[in-house]
Amino acid sequence: MTKGRIEAFSDGVIAIIITIMVLELKVPEGHDAAALQPLIPVFLSYVLSFANVGLYWNNHHHMFHSVTHVGGWVLWANLHLLFWLSLMPFATAFMGESEFAGFPLAVYVVDLLMCAAAYFLLERVLIAQHGRDSTFAKSLGRSWKDKASVVLYLIALPMAFVSNWVALTLVVAVALLWFVPDRRFERHA
Amino acid sequence: MTKGRIEAFSDGVIAIIITIMVLELKVPEGHDAAALQPLIPVFLSYVLSFANVGLYWNNHHHMFHSVTHVGGWVLWANLHLLFWLSLMPFATAFMGESEFAGFPLAVYVVDLLMCAAAYFLLERVLIAQHGRDSTFAKSLGRSWKDKASVVLYLIALPMAFVSNWVALTLVVAVALLWFVPDRRFERHA
Amino acid sequence: MTKGRIEAFSDGVIAIIITIMVLELKVPEGHDAAALQPLIPVFLSYVLSFANVGLYWNNHHHMFHSVTHVGGWVLWANLHLLFWLSLMPFATAFMGESEFAGFPLAVYVVDLLMCAAAYFLLERVLIAQHGRDSTFAKSLGRSWKDKASVVLYLIALPMAFVSNWVALTLVVAVALLWFVPDRRFERHA
Amino acid sequence: MTKGRIEAFSDGVIAIIITIMVLELKVPEGHDAAALQPLIPVFLSYVLSFANVGLYWNNHHHMFHSVTHVGGWVLWANLHLLFWLSLMPFATAFMGESEFAGFPLAVYVVDLLMCAAAYFLLERVLIAQHGRDSTFAKSLGRSWKDKASVVLYLIALPMAFVSNWVALTLVVAVALLWFVPDRRFERHA
Repeated sequence: MTKGRIEAFSDGVIAIIITIMVLELKVPEGHDAAALQPLIPVFLSYVLSFANVGLYWNNHHHMFHSVTHVGGWVLWANLHLLFWLSLMPFATAFMGESEFAGFPLAVYVVDLLMCAAAYFLLERVLIAQHGRDSTFAKSLGRSWKDKASVVLYLIALPMAFVSNWVALTLVVAVALLWFVPDRRFERHA
Repeated sequence: MTKGRIEAFSDGVIAIIITIMVLELKVPEGHDAAALQPLIPVFLSYVLSFANVGLYWNNHHHMFHSVTHVGGWVLWANLHLLFWLSLMPFATAFMGESEFAGFPLAVYVVDLLMCAAAYFLLERVLIAQHGRDSTFAKSLGRSWKDKASVVLYLIALPMAFVSNWVALTLVVAVALLWFVPDRRFERHA
Repeated sequence: MTKGRIEAFSDGVIAIIITIMVLELKVPEGHDAAALQPLIPVFLSYVLSFANVGLYWNNHHHMFHSVTHVGGWVLWANLHLLFWLSLMPFATAFMGESEFAGFPLAVYVVDLLMCAAAYFLLERVLIAQHGRDSTFAKSLGRSWKDKASVVLYLIALPMAFVSNWVALTLVVAVALLWFVPDRRFERHA
Repeated sequence: MTKGRIEAFSDGVIAIIITIMVLELKVPEGHDAAALQPLIPVFLSYVLSFANVGLYWNNHHHMFHSVTHVGGWVLWANLHLLFWLSLMPFATAFMGESEFAGFPLAVYVVDLLMCAAAYFLLERVLIAQHGRDSTFAKSLGRSWKDKASVVLYLIALPMAFVSNWVALTLVVAVALLWFVPDRRFERHA
């Protein structure tokens, strides 16, 4: 029951986050293809963030599928994750409208880093709740993807000021890393 | 469980898409009937998109009703569909504010085409998951409506630049085609 | 199951409608009480619409509680109701920003009338589905409130151009009429 | 069933409230750190309100977990709470954009007071429904936090015009008070 309502609330918040980002795609003045051209960076930012937020929903979904009970701190750790995800529409728009300028791109990477940290924290709180020897803890297993993501983001952060292409490639690489459906929970199910 | 959460998330995203489109109906300056007149094309676009997004929710709902299990790729195929649906508010506003000019209308048709393609892809992934001889695959049966929709959209696309009335009539025809509740799943239920 | 998803989707759409109306309460320039004064009619419109949309959610909730099965047409009748409800944010803002001028107030009443008609239609479709002698049909019973609402709205419509106070009083009267929790379904439960 | 739908609707509304507040974080013109500086008070207001609305969701969630049946008045008391919560995005933006000026800060505190009062009313209605000797009433137990919150808000209200730091400290203190997961219901579960 409790678990169900956390999932429902998280689904609601994530669904709104992923959808209101599209409001940044403001309708242009003109009515031809040229009018859409300035929207391209905003659109690409939207695609990237849609994928990233979708990945979080996906992983959240898989993780909670194996959760058996939730205590009070799980609610806070979950809200904390939703907070950093809720800044994605702002970070996405800031990055897109600047056409991937250094500082806005770095802000975007920082938000992704905070999301990753918040997700990691939520995992730890859930493992503490279930016990280190629980099926839940075992099914989480080796989280090398978590670590690889953080490392790649930490490289992308200073790179944003040097080459936005390198920084963006790293961010996209992390997304692709998570794209393959996570077998961890399925193996144990 | 997993199926339930995909449905809940999809419901959330589709509910937001269908509702935020109304934000494009901006309150006019004047307070008489004349003030509302320029809103007519925006309103008609809204009605058309409300119907189209409603149709997708309806079909999604019917299809998932027969789904018995979902794997990792279903989540991606579903997110992919939601992505193209999430562009509907932009495409609708672009079309409406241009009073159905050629290029914006073509963009709208392209988005509908991408939605149809994404829906078709989701169907294929689900069939692959259930097996070709499953009740699910059988209940999907002959999807002539899918094919007819794509054909009509493909005709509407170039027509948008020739006659917006013909293009719009084709788009409305596809919506009407799907309006009749789909008996496919009900027959097998 | 099917019923559950219609409820979930309706809850989502109604929750968004009721909440995005608050976006019309634009933050004023000044920082004192005088700055808030021009917002009073917008705020009052918001209160009225929050109550009206809340009433629809409430009645929808009570009605579906007694529903035992839903067919294809129910989905359309329900979407049709959601469509007219989705215009409430626009009608509310139009009315509020005009400080209850005749035409915008009439537009608001027309939207309420269309919502009432759509709700009535949904009731009829559900009764047809369950059969006239079903528990559902009996629990709906005498719907004098439906009729009274329509009559009061039909009087309010022309009155909007004569006296906005009379028209608003009639609209508020309908809301108060529905405020008392509906015992119809509880009696039969 | 009925309880589930109240929870789902409340989750939806609260999820939207907590998320649309981020729309006030408007993308600045510039692309450097200096461009973000004027957003700091708006961002801090957002953090504060995200925490407050999150606390309401959390408490609502815990309280309804113990609820066994809901009657008609519960729906109204719940909608009443959602109404005052729905004004949080406005109050937050008004406070943030004024950089915590006296009057907007007082408006924010008034909204928090009304939310607290509405939550208290919802509790009373639920207790009346379950009976004073019910497990539900017992698990609610001594609500000293409710009273302390109201007292602190009542002190913060006039202080807003004297010292915004003192008023904000009081508001933050109330949030911290509720931060510790409420053991009341868990003890009885």
